[in-house]
Amino acid sequence: MESLKNKIRKEGKVLSETVLKVDCFLNHQIDSKFMLDMGKEFARLYKDKEITKIVTIETSGIAPAVAAGIYLDVPVVFAKKSTSSTLNNDTYSREVKSFTKNKVYNILIAKEFLNPNDKVLVIDDFLAYGNALVGLNEIIEESGATVVGAGIVIEKGFQPGGKELRQSGLRVESLAIIESMNENGIIFG
Amino acid sequence: MESLKNKIRKEGKVLSETVLKVDCFLNHQIDSKFMLDMGKEFARLYKDKEITKIVTIETSGIAPAVAAGIYLDVPVVFAKKSTSSTLNNDTYSREVKSFTKNKVYNILIAKEFLNPNDKVLVIDDFLAYGNALVGLNEIIEESGATVVGAGIVIEKGFQPGGKELRQSGLRVESLAIIESMNENGIIFG
Repeated sequence: MESLKNKIRKEGKVLSETVLKVDCFLNHQIDSKFMLDMGKEFARLYKDKEITKIVTIETSGIAPAVAAGIYLDVPVVFAKKSTSSTLNNDTYSREVKSFTKNKVYNILIAKEFLNPNDKVLVIDDFLAYGNALVGLNEIIEESGATVVGAGIVIEKGFQPGGKELRQSGLRVESLAIIESMNENGIIFG
Repeated sequence: MESLKNKIRKEGKVLSETVLKVDCFLNHQIDSKFMLDMGKEFARLYKDKEITKIVTIETSGIAPAVAAGIYLDVPVVFAKKSTSSTLNNDTYSREVKSFTKNKVYNILIAKEFLNPNDKVLVIDDFLAYGNALVGLNEIIEESGATVVGAGIVIEKGFQPGGKELRQSGLRVESLAIIESMNENGIIFG
């Protein structure tokens, strides 16, 4: 998505060869209308797939997921993050390791919000090692629902998540894929 | 907002005389199109106020705030919650006590996202004791920006936050105000 690449070039801050900060339009301040543009693009990519539900993770996945939900006319369910492991018969959960933040947390979705008839589009802000996406997919499959594919705002193409997930057979659509970045600039795939 | 009251009546779960669960359209699953309806209503209420920015708190404020941001054509800044007190020259922060959850947390906003020219609409999902809203307002005023008013999805009118904030001079617009509730139903104000 050319407008997203331009926005990342213009407003993103490359903090290191692996860390990109897009707090100005996605992770702290949110460009409301630009969310709609991205939601529209996700909806276009999956428009023939009879999506019934979007699943994302709090916090930064929510805005692009709701935007896509507006265009696909489906509800969004956001997985909750918890550092405590509260086993509960009413929720699906998975432990997820964040390499970026170097910590382990649990993601939880109430069982009532996923059912075997659901065709799910998973949306998230970043894809790096892919652990959060794997955890979400496992939860969705445990519910009996079908994961149709993933929609990612920014994929770090130099980290293995995207490649591994595509090799496993998952459709992964990333609006921008970063091949490499440093203080001189960002190279997109 | 009549459609919201109907939705609360139909989909909300009254767990006690003080606890209302609206996980099915706001706090866990999000009704994407209904967020737009609410955003449009917030925008209508504040349309002549030259709002330049919306401020909310993660997590459940984000969806209605972004919807309002779409109609007012302004960015949304969401305050981050942290249980650790990380004092930092680059952020404004306040300690907030949640009576509902019986815990204390910090809310943080990076200084770069608020400036003295901003006219801010504060949006949140619930208003009960009002502590989160007071903390947000203090942060916004510390930055030199102006708090124009608040937009709340559901106000618990039987708790003191809304009354106290209005008495202090703040404009508070709640799309639904609950006067009382129990197993027999909900009475709106």
